[in-house]
Amino acid sequence: MTATAEQFSVRHRETLDRALAAIRERAFWTPYPEMPKAYGQEAAAAGQAAYEGYLGRPFPLEQPGTDELVGGEKSPYGVELGVTYPHPDLDVLLPAMRAAIPAWRDAGPEVRATVLIEALGRLNARTHEIAHAVHHTSGQAFGMAFQAGGPHAQDRGLEAIAYAYAAQTAQVAAAEWEKPQGPKPALRMAKRFTAVPRGIALVIGCNTFPTWNSYPGLFASLATGNPVVVKPHPNAVLPLAITVAVLRSTLAEAGFDPDLAALAAESPGEGLAKVLATRPEIRVIDYTGSTEFGVWLERNAPQAVVFTEKAGINTVVVDSVEDYKGMLGNLAFSFSLYSGQMCTTPQNIFIPRGGITAGGEHKSFDDVAADLAGAVERLLGDDARANALLGAVCNPGVIERLKKAESVGKTVLASRTVANPDYPGAEVRTPLIAAIDAADTDVYTGEWFGPISFLIAADDTDAAIETFRKTVTEHGAITASVYSTDDEVIAKTEEAALDAGVNLSVNLTGGVYVNQSAAFSDFHATGANPAANAALSDLAYVAGRFRVVQSRRHI
Amino acid sequence: MTATAEQFSVRHRETLDRALAAIRERAFWTPYPEMPKAYGQEAAAAGQAAYEGYLGRPFPLEQPGTDELVGGEKSPYGVELGVTYPHPDLDVLLPAMRAAIPAWRDAGPEVRATVLIEALGRLNARTHEIAHAVHHTSGQAFGMAFQAGGPHAQDRGLEAIAYAYAAQTAQVAAAEWEKPQGPKPALRMAKRFTAVPRGIALVIGCNTFPTWNSYPGLFASLATGNPVVVKPHPNAVLPLAITVAVLRSTLAEAGFDPDLAALAAESPGEGLAKVLATRPEIRVIDYTGSTEFGVWLERNAPQAVVFTEKAGINTVVVDSVEDYKGMLGNLAFSFSLYSGQMCTTPQNIFIPRGGITAGGEHKSFDDVAADLAGAVERLLGDDARANALLGAVCNPGVIERLKKAESVGKTVLASRTVANPDYPGAEVRTPLIAAIDAADTDVYTGEWFGPISFLIAADDTDAAIETFRKTVTEHGAITASVYSTDDEVIAKTEEAALDAGVNLSVNLTGGVYVNQSAAFSDFHATGANPAANAALSDLAYVAGRFRVVQSRRHI
Repeated sequence: MTATAEQFSVRHRETLDRALAAIRERAFWTPYPEMPKAYGQEAAAAGQAAYEGYLGRPFPLEQPGTDELVGGEKSPYGVELGVTYPHPDLDVLLPAMRAAIPAWRDAGPEVRATVLIEALGRLNARTHEIAHAVHHTSGQAFGMAFQAGGPHAQDRGLEAIAYAYAAQTAQVAAAEWEKPQGPKPALRMAKRFTAVPRGIALVIGCNTFPTWNSYPGLFASLATGNPVVVKPHPNAVLPLAITVAVLRSTLAEAGFDPDLAALAAESPGEGLAKVLATRPEIRVIDYTGSTEFGVWLERNAPQAVVFTEKAGINTVVVDSVEDYKGMLGNLAFSFSLYSGQMCTTPQNIFIPRGGITAGGEHKSFDDVAADLAGAVERLLGDDARANALLGAVCNPGVIERLKKAESVGKTVLASRTVANPDYPGAEVRTPLIAAIDAADTDVYTGEWFGPISFLIAADDTDAAIETFRKTVTEHGAITASVYSTDDEVIAKTEEAALDAGVNLSVNLTGGVYVNQSAAFSDFHATGANPAANAALSDLAYVAGRFRVVQSRRHI
Repeated sequence: MTATAEQFSVRHRETLDRALAAIRERAFWTPYPEMPKAYGQEAAAAGQAAYEGYLGRPFPLEQPGTDELVGGEKSPYGVELGVTYPHPDLDVLLPAMRAAIPAWRDAGPEVRATVLIEALGRLNARTHEIAHAVHHTSGQAFGMAFQAGGPHAQDRGLEAIAYAYAAQTAQVAAAEWEKPQGPKPALRMAKRFTAVPRGIALVIGCNTFPTWNSYPGLFASLATGNPVVVKPHPNAVLPLAITVAVLRSTLAEAGFDPDLAALAAESPGEGLAKVLATRPEIRVIDYTGSTEFGVWLERNAPQAVVFTEKAGINTVVVDSVEDYKGMLGNLAFSFSLYSGQMCTTPQNIFIPRGGITAGGEHKSFDDVAADLAGAVERLLGDDARANALLGAVCNPGVIERLKKAESVGKTVLASRTVANPDYPGAEVRTPLIAAIDAADTDVYTGEWFGPISFLIAADDTDAAIETFRKTVTEHGAITASVYSTDDEVIAKTEEAALDAGVNLSVNLTGGVYVNQSAAFSDFHATGANPAANAALSDLAYVAGRFRVVQSRRHI
């Protein structure tokens, strides 16, 4: 071990231990502050300058086998980034990455974990810079890009490192075995157990959360000894290029081969993810994106362990509520945040046809619909606030779906276009809410990615719970929630959620939203329904990324 | 929880804790004695009587959806068992099994573990009975059937239960989360985390080790909340029928639905494993058997998590040795045990063409070959001892391969037929040893299941190690071993074993054999090479069998 790696171990062992306790105890914890001011007075300007320094030129990243420079990111805010990135000759890059394995494997779980925590700390220090990169590639408003793209992503990275360390150290590194043989001398063996990586890991990034959805797989694979090649979404390369650059320099400084982390940017229309995913060297794949490609990966990369997060139909069951205003405000916020472009945004809101009891009063289905529409209008009435919540639409499919949704059921709230004075090129749209019937299964059993929510009239609460159970079992969901003042209804919904395999939030009326999950406490997705085959993060997410290989000899 | 389930929890919590310590510490431990006399004076006769009581009649097992009785086991010792077993109508049996899930899930990891430990204890008490059943279905000699089919299988079952419990309790069951909000009141949430099963699990048994290879998956799936349907090899049903019957009665006694465990015997030629494996209800599959069907399962049951143990080419590298006689005796025993019908039997023995140094003396390749042949002849010279070691050949393919091997390379030791006075119908064959060259890759890169070993002349030790690394990487192996007096050679072989992903034994010359692994200490297989995609047992073997589902609400 180099002196630097040893220094990192000493410096970060406590953070690792704290993270190990956190994943077990699941109370609140984070080492990475989420408020921009915590990063000091200079950080904002320095981060913006660093971001702007990348624009219009090749990104500084020296990797083996770079055969051309590719680029073409266009910000949802209308700006052309003009950055180019290394495109790999895989026959050169992948062997270089494989060659980096033995030293990284032999370093062991603790050194890997602490070197990676050092890298996360450096990424954390560059949160302002990364926030600009996430903002301009995903279209997230800056405040959200800062939190979700910075500290919350870093939290998820550290959480994955902790799980990886825990899984690899589930057994001792060396043991003596002594088996009694009655009157004869005992049999005695010395045994060693080494965690070995599966091979090279591939992380396929998405457009909407380039860092948050990539960091768990990226850090889990590295922490278990696998080199990682990162294939970003062609429109969200910069945040991951920065990430890979930080990883490479940290690894090199610690005495390891920087090729343990590499970027694989693609030419337009190249389909590099498919090419990479079917290479024999690729033994682990992490993917966030469409159901279609996720299922393709699950079926067509049998040489790899494949972790996917795909589409889902997130569901809310409304039965009754004490704090009606709290519910309306909470749901309005969840519909609006990042224009509903979160994999966690609620889409299907089941409401009994005969209405609900809210704060002791009866509210008809139409009352609830009108009040929800009103809550969204109030929330987004001010354009500056609307821009800060909605961000920008990141792909044209969202606009098409909004158009299509206009003719679905009864429009309770139409989507409006919000002007963005800073970026006239940005598409900023408020949520559309449509009322439909539980019989309209064709409408609500598919995902309408974007700011589109359906208020679905159910025969009664029991019917709503049953439809929730059935649709999530068949089509998947990342999130679910229920509003009820009746413990029995909550218990029934919890039972349905256990059966369908989806995480449930109960009576959210305050500052916690169904589309947000806190690392070290909330699991993101479950792996138990079709929306995802894995959770971020748990033991199942890390245990298959490495194997234990044993050596034994007589003493 | 019923009073009985509570009783089991109190009774077995200490065993569970001891097993949890054992899987971490990996020193010697077993709660199940391997010597027959430890089971009391009455046990042998009672076990034999119990076994004989099954013969020639329907096996007592009442399951939902039994549409006919099927059977036809013929012992490798020539005896027709004449037992018939329930054949399932899956459209009745599988829904009944699914209905058993909620109460078993809600019981939680500790109750599940301790109920299953109770079942293992009852199986342990019936070890003599099970030993006869294993002996007469696998063809293992009685002594081996007793140990491998009884306590060693039970050890592997308990080990899987311990891993399942550890993985499910990796996080607390409930937590309070409190996030500071600066001057505003903190956000507070109560959270619950529930381990939920994936669905129904399928265990596909094998002919040679009906209990040992089935218990890990069977107990891992049950301990993680999944009902398990056991599809035995058509020629090795009885040991698993007894196992399922014990599980069903223990489950019922503890207040759970006995349909959590069911047997699915098949009609001749039915191919029930394929039918079951592709049913949507089946979400976990454990399989031991041919590479062909294992790969088919891995590719064609995408709805399930699939754990396979397939064929491998177990390898020994001989470089030099201090205790030459010890090595010869150790290898001779490994070649002979159960007629080489173990997935762990060494097949490819690489020896430098120019010979080796043994106890300070030079031994030519031919010397080593002749001495190995002599060691096998000495070991098996006495027919009674040969029968006790070899058992009986369990399928005609072994005899065909022995015939074919006669014309491969130079026969160093021919296989002879050993008479079995108790069972004249038994095929008992001693090992065949052939000398070939490292250039004969066509011969030694495939598995020759049975008592067939190749002594392969390599250019030198380095070449042997490289061929070991390459062939195991490409074709897989469950075991490997090296003999060397040179630390550098051992280190090189260990490095190759880490790279190829195979467990290595170093300089075995005494009473530990490469084809034996001790539960709670040795991992069986690694999952890191083509011979198996899982190890018995580790966290990866259990973590994907369940998912954590969360519920959260404001406090």
